Amino acid sequence: MSLVGLTATPDPGPGTVAELRELHALTADADGGAERLAWTPGWVTARNWLTARLDEVPVPHERDEAGNLWATLAGAEDGAVVVGSHLDAVPGGGWLDGTLGVLAGLAAIRELARGPRTRRSVSLVDWADEEGARFGHSLLGSSAAAGTLDVDRVAALRDRDGRRLADVLAEHGVDVATMTRSRDRLAGVRAYAELHIEQGPVLDAAEVGLGVVSGTLGVERHEFVFTGRAVHAGGTPMELRHDALAAAARLALAVREIAREHGGVATCGRIDADPGVATAVAGEATVLVDLRHAHAPALGAMLRDARAAAGEIASAERVSASDRPLHRTAPLTFDADLLALAHDAATTATGAPVPTLASGPLHDAAAVAATGIPVAMLFVRSLGGVSHTRAEDSRADDLAAGVRALALLTRALAER
Amino acid sequence: MSLVGLTATPDPGPGTVAELRELHALTADADGGAERLAWTPGWVTARNWLTARLDEVPVPHERDEAGNLWATLAGAEDGAVVVGSHLDAVPGGGWLDGTLGVLAGLAAIRELARGPRTRRSVSLVDWADEEGARFGHSLLGSSAAAGTLDVDRVAALRDRDGRRLADVLAEHGVDVATMTRSRDRLAGVRAYAELHIEQGPVLDAAEVGLGVVSGTLGVERHEFVFTGRAVHAGGTPMELRHDALAAAARLALAVREIAREHGGVATCGRIDADPGVATAVAGEATVLVDLRHAHAPALGAMLRDARAAAGEIASAERVSASDRPLHRTAPLTFDADLLALAHDAATTATGAPVPTLASGPLHDAAAVAATGIPVAMLFVRSLGGVSHTRAEDSRADDLAAGVRALALLTRALAER
Repeated sequence: MSLVGLTATPDPGPGTVAELRELHALTADADGGAERLAWTPGWVTARNWLTARLDEVPVPHERDEAGNLWATLAGAEDGAVVVGSHLDAVPGGGWLDGTLGVLAGLAAIRELARGPRTRRSVSLVDWADEEGARFGHSLLGSSAAAGTLDVDRVAALRDRDGRRLADVLAEHGVDVATMTRSRDRLAGVRAYAELHIEQGPVLDAAEVGLGVVSGTLGVERHEFVFTGRAVHAGGTPMELRHDALAAAARLALAVREIAREHGGVATCGRIDADPGVATAVAGEATVLVDLRHAHAPALGAMLRDARAAAGEIASAERVSASDRPLHRTAPLTFDADLLALAHDAATTATGAPVPTLASGPLHDAAAVAATGIPVAMLFVRSLGGVSHTRAEDSRADDLAAGVRALALLTRALAER
Repeated sequence: MSLVGLTATPDPGPGTVAELRELHALTADADGGAERLAWTPGWVTARNWLTARLDEVPVPHERDEAGNLWATLAGAEDGAVVVGSHLDAVPGGGWLDGTLGVLAGLAAIRELARGPRTRRSVSLVDWADEEGARFGHSLLGSSAAAGTLDVDRVAALRDRDGRRLADVLAEHGVDVATMTRSRDRLAGVRAYAELHIEQGPVLDAAEVGLGVVSGTLGVERHEFVFTGRAVHAGGTPMELRHDALAAAARLALAVREIAREHGGVATCGRIDADPGVATAVAGEATVLVDLRHAHAPALGAMLRDARAAAGEIASAERVSASDRPLHRTAPLTFDADLLALAHDAATTATGAPVPTLASGPLHDAAAVAATGIPVAMLFVRSLGGVSHTRAEDSRADDLAAGVRALALLTRALAER
């Protein structure tokens, strides 16, 4: 597909970068970290700021049954295009994660509202609770709209203060029992586009400002538990030990080799030892293992290899091993036509070729893509690849290029 | 030295085993674990039980300025022999750790009280707070008596409820400022003897019931910190990572090789990762490393090797490394004459040769030995080598043999 319908627009980029800074100033904590945790006052402040901007466009807006916020410019024909991301943030997070995509979508809507009616309707969506940082369930609003949310399971989730998700959402006007009625919003949607910061170092290492996302990596997240014998660190000769933590350390290193062999990524982000003191050989150790790959067969092979490694290590260390799945996501490959269109938009916006890369982190776009709606996603370079911290940052010219690319892409999709 | 002065006595062993069970029944929690944490009601209950037994002997008893409990049979000449251990226990600990030595000492005193006056005075001591399980400072009472206690430092220690050590001890009649006056108790002491469970698997693996302790291992306990870069687990290719936890895992494995090379022991009992979540490569990881060896030069070499390994690993993983000492104890070799005497007593009590082994765990005996007083220590086999848990156990015949050996040793020391 060529760049049919893609026209140059006045550059909305610098204005959106200024708006991103304004929103961050309004919702940052004392240390400069984001204070927009979903279902808290900071998040409500951010949304109120957004609805005030939508009123200025003007464009009508409303919330759906899952708490997602929608603003829609009516089109001339049936069918809609959706652009968006999320305003919520992890505690102490950065100024761009999620906000970039929402404010770029706002800029796109603002541009289109100034011109003639588009062929398709164009909606901006601010998904509710993408991060899952409070209740541990990410993509809450988008998975409700995608119809994949397990309502009964999430209703009972509790935050660290022991409050139930269902009770907290009720205070924000969301009835968990009817959340999935938000599925109606995706009926007739022909395309979904999202701009996001990369949250990884690939573009930074390649020294390019924008990238096009080919899909999302599949995830196999497992907890491996090794059980040995807790004995005194001073009184137990090395050859008489059954050291669960040593087994855990070996697995943490083994999964890296497995990732390299299969061309995926593998991370051990945490090891817990019991009793976890200096004076005892650990009797039990738990390892969090997160395996990711763009292709399902390779991901399955990585998990098989990790399990085999755990068994071999357990045998060598004279401990026992078990594992249980914590989270599984199948790999997703985004729509090829939209990928080409996104590529053209990004190339036009930057004036240079842009690379294609898979997304390791999950995004609302993945929830939408899982319904079969064609999805396009653009990444802006993250400086140093850092994310989920207030140190998260991107260059202003990269951000502006990303906003411009999304506006071009949205216009092209709206006229398809 | 031969077994001069060692005479057969009626076997006090079975009675002491029964008393150990009685004391445990009196001070166990609902799960059968010891509830004798120092400076709590369970510990006071245990002490009241002990003083009632001492009153039955009868033998006068009193507490010193550090809260240690002393009972003394006066001898015919100057000079004293001390036997003892501790009644306090880690929460949920076992029935023998510490109590065995105190009750065996009680049995020895009881035996001697029935006979003619001994040449030397014989004191039983129940050291206060050997475990340090509440405030984190082990050997509290014995190090006060040894004069090695840093009073200002310990006064400010707090328990997990935030209560200061000085305030809690004051409730038990102990003024921290004057604790080290208990040093007078060790003036004129010619020998100290302690019976304890091994808390390790060496005797169990060798299938013998008793062992003689040659000394205590020196300890170098350090915290190694690796600092890398916290990045998203999904979005960061393996070759672009600076994974602090991977470095920590490599060090945990490297110190084991170092221990084997030098004939010591090395333990990594805990690894803490930050942020410590499944979705992030750890930006920082802290490893607790505990190195032990019977000889100071080898212990120093182990520490040098561990630091070198940390540096090499950090370089390979492109992270930085630092370390800080948490605890250091020099190796101690016990008095050769008393070692021989203890060996004879143990051989007589068991009717078979007994091995000599170094103690990995610290004991009050080490605090006493550090003052220059000759020390003898006997170990009773720990089944499975387990310790600091309610699963801690020893065979009744081994316990009885240990009690018998301590009685023989005490008599021999009292007549020297």
